[in-house]
Amino acid sequence: MGTTLKDQVAVIGVGCIKFGDNFDQGYEEMAAEAAYAAFHDARIAPEEIDAAWLGTYSPAQGHGKAAVSLGDALRLYNKPISRVENFCATGTDAFRHAVLAVASGMYDTALVLGVEKYKDRPGRGLAREGVHPYYHDGSTAPGLFALAATRYMHEFGLTRETLSKVAVKNHRNGALNAKAHLQKEVTPEAVLTAPIVAYPFGLYDCCPTTDGAAAAVVCRADLAKKYRADHILVKGVGLSVTSGRPFMDPNFDYLGFRATQNASAQAYAMAGITDPLKDIDVAEVHDCFTWTEISNYEDLGFIQKGEGARLIEEGRTALEGDIPVNPSGGLKSFGHPIGASGVRMVYEIVTQLRGEAGPRQVTDPKLGLVHNVGGPGAVSCVAVLGQP
Amino acid sequence: MGTTLKDQVAVIGVGCIKFGDNFDQGYEEMAAEAAYAAFHDARIAPEEIDAAWLGTYSPAQGHGKAAVSLGDALRLYNKPISRVENFCATGTDAFRHAVLAVASGMYDTALVLGVEKYKDRPGRGLAREGVHPYYHDGSTAPGLFALAATRYMHEFGLTRETLSKVAVKNHRNGALNAKAHLQKEVTPEAVLTAPIVAYPFGLYDCCPTTDGAAAAVVCRADLAKKYRADHILVKGVGLSVTSGRPFMDPNFDYLGFRATQNASAQAYAMAGITDPLKDIDVAEVHDCFTWTEISNYEDLGFIQKGEGARLIEEGRTALEGDIPVNPSGGLKSFGHPIGASGVRMVYEIVTQLRGEAGPRQVTDPKLGLVHNVGGPGAVSCVAVLGQP
Repeated sequence: MGTTLKDQVAVIGVGCIKFGDNFDQGYEEMAAEAAYAAFHDARIAPEEIDAAWLGTYSPAQGHGKAAVSLGDALRLYNKPISRVENFCATGTDAFRHAVLAVASGMYDTALVLGVEKYKDRPGRGLAREGVHPYYHDGSTAPGLFALAATRYMHEFGLTRETLSKVAVKNHRNGALNAKAHLQKEVTPEAVLTAPIVAYPFGLYDCCPTTDGAAAAVVCRADLAKKYRADHILVKGVGLSVTSGRPFMDPNFDYLGFRATQNASAQAYAMAGITDPLKDIDVAEVHDCFTWTEISNYEDLGFIQKGEGARLIEEGRTALEGDIPVNPSGGLKSFGHPIGASGVRMVYEIVTQLRGEAGPRQVTDPKLGLVHNVGGPGAVSCVAVLGQP
Repeated sequence: MGTTLKDQVAVIGVGCIKFGDNFDQGYEEMAAEAAYAAFHDARIAPEEIDAAWLGTYSPAQGHGKAAVSLGDALRLYNKPISRVENFCATGTDAFRHAVLAVASGMYDTALVLGVEKYKDRPGRGLAREGVHPYYHDGSTAPGLFALAATRYMHEFGLTRETLSKVAVKNHRNGALNAKAHLQKEVTPEAVLTAPIVAYPFGLYDCCPTTDGAAAAVVCRADLAKKYRADHILVKGVGLSVTSGRPFMDPNFDYLGFRATQNASAQAYAMAGITDPLKDIDVAEVHDCFTWTEISNYEDLGFIQKGEGARLIEEGRTALEGDIPVNPSGGLKSFGHPIGASGVRMVYEIVTQLRGEAGPRQVTDPKLGLVHNVGGPGAVSCVAVLGQP
């Protein structure tokens, strides 16, 4: 591996639209609203953007396929634009590519745009596309993660009661967030009595299907002050890919995801983080299901494998806790438009680090973490952002 | 824009499988054969690869979607792997991403793999996916490029006889290439009397539908000697995106592609090329249709707009010419498995620069060009490779 990119790239602007059932917006309207919000936030003119990356997982209805979906949406022409796709880690990986490209010296500034349109089309992305082997046997995302969750419950004695507390926490945070899809609190009773989707996951243990778009503008750290004095620095990034067929992977123990362990180890090494629980002040992690968040606590090194339940039981990952997780509401409440989610997490962490998160602001964060896991736990991308 | 990456990244190994109707190979078999050929050529062990990029445009039958399609095919696990997609420029853009990432200092070595499986599945990729607006009105790739070709013929007096000479040249080159899909020469008469696909394009004016895979291994230039003394250096890369809806673009004159003009201008500036016709010794350009190659001559700056026909008429782009174009046989004869093509062009140019192209070897090349154009002329990616 090469040298560290720590502090070489800055995030100078972020933008995020209201996530939800956006029947009043098409793919391009969402993309343009998020990108222009980021341009405005960065005090940058579109023509000052040197290159751009689009993160869309499920192209449909003529949008999200190839870089032209970004170019035409923003009328941003004659620029280098690429589409990156990496399962549910698509958004974070698009951000990682912009960071690598700016760090290379090739571009001074770059736009990252994550967009996904799911609500007014036949079928959900994953079901509609159904192009990956692990869907060919009839399993689905809830069904697959449920296999890991049940194994984990058997191994470590995790209960549905504890899982429900993740949903309650993230819905509580989302209720404070005007841009979240599901802006409402839920009671433990409601979570535990909801219809079962795939045991142990009931309706409130699963993230919803959502439309959304988010954007970030990055630039060379040494040029950041030209745009914003209060820019945020990229401290580390990491990406790791394991097998896309966990059932065929003899090393898959169903208790967590090696991709997350590896990706976070890369990002921590770059950021100089030795004790994630102590060093990280706020985290947006991939809570596609309630169990995933608990498993992420462990795979991200916040706590030993098998002990993640303690962090939620003791309220340590609540807004007032010592390691607030998903202050935005998470995928669970904010929604999960796949390609948009990772960029939306960057938006949240930058907003928190700036102290601009309003009612969901955590106390004086200096270092924040962004985490996606994709496919059957096969892909994970992590970014660590911090104060200059 | 930032600084130049000239001479910072080296190509230390390339691999390419036999292109064609590969009914005896699946997506993963093709991917593994190409990648291991590149590993062997680079004298590198798979575990020495720091990161990888997969270029596949049309995922199908559970393959080509997301980075796991590369990881599982090669059993290359716990590495950062991403999928890049950019229409027919997918392969070259995957190569560009590996170059940017190595230049960033983040990785010392990277694998680029382009793979596409078209022949044993329902429909061709573009037709099957049909997800881009310019296909919604019933137009197809031949139909769309034919609109530009007929406008060009009207404007500059180009004839089908001249177009046929591009097919004759590229088939002649492909007949010398054991890895080409269509290893046969064609006569001008055969080209001119072939069934019309979309006027002015007959069957032999169009590239075929092909299965294929190609790979390249890049590394930091200062480490290249550790692997191969005869490595090739990346002199320049460029990518440009215009509108994906040329019919809606008032600036589109149907006579050439601004994306190619911009992408090559970026790559030439980085490589320090001021006179492409004189400086470039061999080129692999995107001849999806015969007219496209002639238009490319102009858009790549080899000759003035409207005069491209002279280069083919005077035999200057033949193997023996002063600017040999598509010595491999081009998309026309070698075939065009979309994500594989750009990487296959890198394979050809590296092979030519090493003087290892056998019967199709051009005379003593020092500088070579790789060019893809994608979508309705909307995307272009260019790379310039040269001797150290």
